[in-house]
Amino acid sequence: MPIQAISWSPSGAVRIIDQRALPEAEITRDLESAESVADAIRQLQVRGAPLIGIAAAMGLVAAMREQRTAPRADFLARARELAALLGATRPTAVNLRWALARMLRVAEETPGEAGDVWERLRLEATAIWEEDRAMCRRIGEHGITLLAEGAKVLTHCNTGALATGGIGTALAPIYLAHDQGRKVHVYVDETRPLLQGARLTAWELTHAGIPCTVIVDAAAGALMRAAQVDVVFVGADRIARNGDFANKIGTYSLAVLALHHSVPFYCCAPSSTIDASLADGDAIPIEQRPADEVKTVAGRPVTPAEAAALNPAFDVTPARYVTGFVTDRGIVQPPFSGGESQS
Amino acid sequence: MPIQAISWSPSGAVRIIDQRALPEAEITRDLESAESVADAIRQLQVRGAPLIGIAAAMGLVAAMREQRTAPRADFLARARELAALLGATRPTAVNLRWALARMLRVAEETPGEAGDVWERLRLEATAIWEEDRAMCRRIGEHGITLLAEGAKVLTHCNTGALATGGIGTALAPIYLAHDQGRKVHVYVDETRPLLQGARLTAWELTHAGIPCTVIVDAAAGALMRAAQVDVVFVGADRIARNGDFANKIGTYSLAVLALHHSVPFYCCAPSSTIDASLADGDAIPIEQRPADEVKTVAGRPVTPAEAAALNPAFDVTPARYVTGFVTDRGIVQPPFSGGESQS
Repeated sequence: MPIQAISWSPSGAVRIIDQRALPEAEITRDLESAESVADAIRQLQVRGAPLIGIAAAMGLVAAMREQRTAPRADFLARARELAALLGATRPTAVNLRWALARMLRVAEETPGEAGDVWERLRLEATAIWEEDRAMCRRIGEHGITLLAEGAKVLTHCNTGALATGGIGTALAPIYLAHDQGRKVHVYVDETRPLLQGARLTAWELTHAGIPCTVIVDAAAGALMRAAQVDVVFVGADRIARNGDFANKIGTYSLAVLALHHSVPFYCCAPSSTIDASLADGDAIPIEQRPADEVKTVAGRPVTPAEAAALNPAFDVTPARYVTGFVTDRGIVQPPFSGGESQS
Repeated sequence: MPIQAISWSPSGAVRIIDQRALPEAEITRDLESAESVADAIRQLQVRGAPLIGIAAAMGLVAAMREQRTAPRADFLARARELAALLGATRPTAVNLRWALARMLRVAEETPGEAGDVWERLRLEATAIWEEDRAMCRRIGEHGITLLAEGAKVLTHCNTGALATGGIGTALAPIYLAHDQGRKVHVYVDETRPLLQGARLTAWELTHAGIPCTVIVDAAAGALMRAAQVDVVFVGADRIARNGDFANKIGTYSLAVLALHHSVPFYCCAPSSTIDASLADGDAIPIEQRPADEVKTVAGRPVTPAEAAALNPAFDVTPARYVTGFVTDRGIVQPPFSGGESQS
């Protein structure tokens, strides 16, 4: 069974696994306030485009507990304030903004006192989480059709149970294949600088008993040249209408390598990842993270102190490199009319 | 001025900078025996294809000091024994075998007592070192013609003063351009797993006052797509007659990315790197290093303990990806008739 990355604590706080500490330690944290959820998202204690959307929605509920007796107008004003705080934590993933916009819309549309609105928000956050879990499963059901017996899959970053409310996006087909007793082997890009592949994907696959092999990111080309990769599955943080998509830095390199080696390359994401407001990938904001994430590993410097480093967290892969988009609605092709936010 | 990576100690030992400790500490070690030189090569205290050839030749001389009064036949037998020990340390770089074969040939061709042969060997090792220094400079002189004012160069691993007896191979044109007051910016692939780019290239360029920016290996594609790379310069550990060459893992991915983005891609290496015995790259032995180099960084685990990891130290780039070979003999194209060993 894959790990459960998020849940409600008995007191109504957001319970997460602190993903910074994995694989060395499994630390559970109960986040009581919007500030603590925002910090957890900024510091990548909780990460993965679908999961940060869920965490933000649940965080809004946890934070609004103490506003339940406030006047309705004050309650709504405070909710907007905290949603703005949560929405500003990371710029690239659209799910975060999508989930918060949905929560605010529901709040405003729900009649009654603050307490009634809060109850509705709690149901809505839980629904976002449950819908994500269902979307993961449907992504898996569509994606499994792409996996032949004995398939060797290359993946990047972490797109599994630790990135979602369910069994993941790009890892969902792999979990389902394994559950059905089918043989599959996963090559895991370690995914510098923050090593989400080595730390998180290898950890959750190993726990689930799925055979996997970690490689350095730079080894992907040689692996494809040696015909060791049957298919590439990656996730997405935001997909534009034309199918250009942002994902973890290194995804674009993989897409070029896959095209060059005629290896099918699939982007696996829930339809909530589609941003219907963007015509193409050029307008997707790319988060620049601190240079120190490149300059240090596990707290130890790996460059001279005075060295400069670039640390874009994401890159954009144009749609023409993508064999298909594995979504909860099937294996589809752009253009896209929009995500759940339009439905 | 670039750093001096190797020299004779006053007592005739091989003096090296322990490259494992950089950039945190600058530790000089005097290697007195063949075993200690072999250990230093195996552990990558000293690395870089040209430099390990020089280190092995000098190590043979240092180790043979105590054999100077032995009978000639015993001296030669012992030299062969130690050369075999040194030659077995790393399989991929041809310079190691080339330097040791040259030393043994000189030993056998030199008449006289052991002491005379030893003196000749000491001159020969110094000559190998000095020739390498001269070859580096000539590589620089040829390569500088490829650098426009303000050129943005992407490089991989460490191919500078720390990898050679002189100013490097792929970094030599950059050092010369900087000396001439020309503007150049170097993007440095960090080069996992052992981070020779982040630790060594950034260190020596920073010390020389050359502007550089470290990136994670996976960012190279996005950087090329953003038109931030004018040219790629890499080194080589072994070049086959048809121009296929082995170099640090990740070189092949860069070559594919460069071709895809129409970025010129040059392999910079002394002609001693050409292995005339190999028709093509398929026969180049690829060193598989311990999985722990991938599974740990700076001694700290970055994967679950039970995770599997692949760690090929090198990959092979077919000649068709290479715009040109920048050697001490000019910017040349395959086929190659052979290296210095044939001249």
